[in-house]
Parts: sequence; structure tokens; C-alpha cells
Amino acid sequence: MKGAVLFGPGDVRYVERKDPEILEPTDAIIRMSATCVCGSDLWPYRGIDSPNGPTPMGHEYCGIVEEVGRAVTEIKPGQFVVGSFFASDNTCAICRAGYQSRCVHAFPMGREGAQAPFLRVPLADGTLVATPELPSERLVPGLLSASDVLGTGWFGAEAAAVAPGKTVAIVGDGAVGLCAVIAAKQMGSERIIMMSRHEDRQRLAREFGASEIVTERGDEGITRIKDMTDGLGAHSVIEAVGTQESMMQAIHSTRPGGHVGFVGVAHGVAIPGVELFFAEVHLHGGPAPVRKYLPQLIDLVLNRTIDPGKVFDLTLPLDQVAEGYRAMNERRAIKALLVPGR
Amino acid sequence: MKGAVLFGPGDVRYVERKDPEILEPTDAIIRMSATCVCGSDLWPYRGIDSPNGPTPMGHEYCGIVEEVGRAVTEIKPGQFVVGSFFASDNTCAICRAGYQSRCVHAFPMGREGAQAPFLRVPLADGTLVATPELPSERLVPGLLSASDVLGTGWFGAEAAAVAPGKTVAIVGDGAVGLCAVIAAKQMGSERIIMMSRHEDRQRLAREFGASEIVTERGDEGITRIKDMTDGLGAHSVIEAVGTQESMMQAIHSTRPGGHVGFVGVAHGVAIPGVELFFAEVHLHGGPAPVRKYLPQLIDLVLNRTIDPGKVFDLTLPLDQVAEGYRAMNERRAIKALLVPGR
Repeated sequence: MKGAVLFGPGDVRYVERKDPEILEPTDAIIRMSATCVCGSDLWPYRGIDSPNGPTPMGHEYCGIVEEVGRAVTEIKPGQFVVGSFFASDNTCAICRAGYQSRCVHAFPMGREGAQAPFLRVPLADGTLVATPELPSERLVPGLLSASDVLGTGWFGAEAAAVAPGKTVAIVGDGAVGLCAVIAAKQMGSERIIMMSRHEDRQRLAREFGASEIVTERGDEGITRIKDMTDGLGAHSVIEAVGTQESMMQAIHSTRPGGHVGFVGVAHGVAIPGVELFFAEVHLHGGPAPVRKYLPQLIDLVLNRTIDPGKVFDLTLPLDQVAEGYRAMNERRAIKALLVPGR
Repeated sequence: MKGAVLFGPGDVRYVERKDPEILEPTDAIIRMSATCVCGSDLWPYRGIDSPNGPTPMGHEYCGIVEEVGRAVTEIKPGQFVVGSFFASDNTCAICRAGYQSRCVHAFPMGREGAQAPFLRVPLADGTLVATPELPSERLVPGLLSASDVLGTGWFGAEAAAVAPGKTVAIVGDGAVGLCAVIAAKQMGSERIIMMSRHEDRQRLAREFGASEIVTERGDEGITRIKDMTDGLGAHSVIEAVGTQESMMQAIHSTRPGGHVGFVGVAHGVAIPGVELFFAEVHLHGGPAPVRKYLPQLIDLVLNRTIDPGKVFDLTLPLDQVAEGYRAMNERRAIKALLVPGR
């Protein structure tokens, strides 16, 4: 088969790759229904994380099970499945505590490269969640979003302890930040402040449930949030970027005793201990335990309570994956959906 | 009156200071029953935090109310009181949420200098908690400890989400770390690991409820804790030092999804964002909201459930305060109690 490979900064190509096959008896092979480009794929694309040599790309996926290993008992060929960007056994002590992305057998799906028509999924019974029946094509983008971006926004909101009666602020108007709006709304927050300076993203944030928009950032953004919250700061702040500026903006926009949920993959961030000490916030984040949320998120998409598929504002045939990277890198698209040819 | 003043690194003197007086109608003046030297006092004593010119010292206190301002309605002259190292109104939104040390009117008691026979306490009704009757002299050290060191250890344990069934590790065997053992025990943890290399402190830790001692630190300490917890790390880790090494030791000794409570005042600490991201721990800490815990802690001391006064292994007349600093700085004492002359 062909699939996406990153050869160097700015250089993604759709080229011949090895067909995936069952390597372990717990593996499954899926035929991709849709995949996409993640904000975190842009770090190596921009040369900030430098991979060693040509690297298969992509870690978000949903599709039809083609084949399973002999130890797979729950997942069956023919099912439509969604999985997390980390494969997990879903049985170890860490998984049972709800941190499947840090499973003792965690496997990063990026290593397999999901921007391809077929994908090997390790630990299939632990990793994959099947829908009750084959979903309509219209719902596939929303189901795909559960594989990472929606689950990540959801974790950000949970880590920020979003709840009814709390004011929530979101730093980062990318697809994760926008999905965090959906999560905060579902978790009962009546006041959701999106920090965004892009009109198209502001519009989608409002559609998802944001009640206010703040266009300032850095110290000015912090001052704005404090002005809007009796000088105290928001109760819950979700950080969905991963830079020093966004992290400190999140910490200082939060009131003492409040919660920061950070889900942007940190790049070059160093948190000054003394600032964190006197900010007195709760700080929690990391790779989202998407697997924990999948059953709930799949339900919310299937029963049309939420429509996170709207974060995909560009749809391309999979073989035009390079254009997906370019469009996101140049901010012409929030998130690019990739559909394999039939 | 005379009181402790820091003139420069290593130079604490008991010298003439202005008598405290009621400045605001919400103030009280107390006659000190006992005060002490805090681990955090050693930072400026060692020249690491450099104050501008001569500085009154001390922020831990308990004593008899001498006089109150006209707006003070709850606290009465003649009562024995304990207060937090931060004065607070105990009515603002931040106080009501349980973060009195970050009260919108918070006042650091160190600014008044509690190592003295008399002390002005701002916001007396919000800050002070009175005992039902005058306590026996035997209980005064324990009551004094509630003013900071016990309350700080308690907050560390609460921030680390200590609970029955969880394994707790404590980084730092100073008075705060030792009080954290008391807190963890009271909160129901059956497995409390103290990281300590000093025999006298190990002994006191065991007396307070520690079940195991780890003498290794840094990477070796982390490995030891993982070996003792099925390779996963402790559920709850309390950081009670405030250095880069102790903070990273705490973070990496904690299992994914676990909690780090940090109460050592951070000095020169910078937490690498990417390490925190992939550690996936909860991180919470800062100046302890001691006021929240005072009623409970006073009860536990008065009914002799706990005996935190044992952290004071040196008692000196207040006018020998300089020897208290020297003894703690040279690790000849865990914590020095200072008693004014009668």
C-alpha cells in the first residue's frame, strides 16, 4: 500500500509503505474509513521535533476491522471501530485508574503511521471500541475526532475540573481548544471564554458553546480574564497549545485554588517553580487517556448530541495528504480530514 | 520590646524593635506564648533570598490576646489563639474556596516578625482561632506547630490526594515532611514511605507513622520507590524541600494519574514542561491554607490524637534566637522552639 511519510521539514509524501500485518496475536488490522492531520504532526513537519530518517505519519484513525490475531476475542472483523492514539491493554493498574495513554504496555500509534489505507492496531481488545452498527458516512468525521482531538479536549476539561457554576477559559483555538469548548459545555459550564484572534475559529467556538471571546493574549489576555472574573481569574483553564507563553497565560489566568488542564504537547516549556507555588493552582495534563472516554464520546456523536466533526474544515483524498499539512501549517485549515480512495 | 532581626547572611540578633500597636480596627495584639524558626527562614539567613536591610523575622505564633481593635467581634482579650502565617479575612471568594493563604487581603505575617514577645495580627477575626480554654503548657508546642509546619504538612498530604489504600512517599525529612507523615497517617494511608538519610528524623518519622524508610535520593531514590510499587511509582508524593532535585524526584516517583503535593518554597526550580506532560501527574502546592485546617488541627492536638510538638527538638529562650538559627542551619536541630521570658 501507499501511505504518508515525512522525509524532512515540510516534506510529506504519499509513497509506497509496507502492508501492515498481524505481528502479535493481540493485533488487529483495520481498513481506514478516515484519518487526519494532527496539530502535533506539525511539530516534526516544521522541523522542531526532528525524526531520524523517513517516518510514517498519523495517529488518528477509525475504520472497519479486516483481520484480528488469534488472541483477540472482543473485536470482530467487519465491525466499525475507533481507537486512541495510544494503544493500551485497558487492564493494567494504570489503565484501571483511567490513564490508558500511560498503560504499562502503551504503544504510540504514530509509530505505525495512521495516514494510510490500512493500519495495524496492537492490543486490539484493549484499544478499540466498536460502534453498535456501521455508522452513516455523515458521522464518520465526528467518530474520527474521538480518536484524539475530541478526547484530548475532553481530558483538558476534565483535568481543569470543569463543572456547573465555574467559569472556564480556553487558551488555544485549534481543533483541540474548540473540542474543549464542546467538552466544557457538556460538563455543564455556563460561562466558557475562548481566547482566539481568528474569526472563523471564534464562530465555531460560539457554535460549540463559547459564551465570550477574548482576543488579547499574554499579559493582556491574563488581565482581560481577571477583569471578567472579579479580579480573581477563571476557575478552570484549558491549555491547548504547548508553548511557554500559552502555559504561563493559562497558569496566571487561573484563580488560586483553580485548575489548569494542559493538553498541548509541551515544546520548550519550563515552568518557574516559584510562580507555580504562588499561583497555587492545580496543574494536570499530558497525553489524553482517550480510551477512557471513547464509549461516551461515540455515544454522544451517534445520538447527535455533539457534532465535533465540524472541526474538519478541509476534506482531501488521502493521497493529497501533503496539501493537508500545508493548509494546516499555513492556517488555511483548522484540521484536514483524509479519506482513502474506494 | 526586643525581637529577632536579620541584618545579613548568618546574622540574626535579638534587638530593640517598635512595640506593635493596633493600626487597623480589625487588628489584634497577642502576647507570645511560643514562636519558632521555620525552614523557610533559613533561605534569607543563608543569603539566598536577600532582604533589603534589617528585617524582623518569624511568622509562626500562638499566644494570649492582649488587645483588639474596635471592629474585632469574635476574638476576645484573654483568649489563647493560634493563627496562620498568612492573615486572611476568611470571607472572600478565595477564602471560602479554602485558599486563605491567597485571600484577596492576604497579609504575610513575616512582615510583622513573630519572633518577638508581642505581635500585631491583622484581620484578627478571620485569622485567629481560639482554644475553648487556656491549654496546658505541655500542649503549646503542638498548638504552635499548627500555625505553619503542621498545617503545611497537612496541605501537602491533601494536595497529594492522600487516602486509604494509597501508597504515599515523602521527599524531605524536615519538620514539614515529618508533619506530612502525621497528616498521611490521619488521612488513612497504611503505607507511608519517608525518604530520609538522618537517623534521628527516621526515628521520629516511624513514631509518627511512616512504615518504610528510603535513604536513596535523586534517580536512585526514584528507582527505589518504583521497585517498591510494582514499577509504577507512589500514588501520592509530598514534596517538602523546594529544590530542583526534590521537585523532580517527587514528580518522577509518582505514578501516571497520581498526585504530587508540593509545599517546599521553590527556589531556583524550573519544571520541564515535556517531563511534566509525559509524567501525567497532578501537581498542586503553594503556601498552605493553614487557616482552613486550624480548627481541626487544634482539636487533634488538644485531644492528644497527634503530638506534632515533637518536631521541636530544641527549646530556647526567645532572646537566644540566634542559636536557634545556627542549630537548624547546621542541622543540629530539626526545629527550634522559642519561649519568651516571663
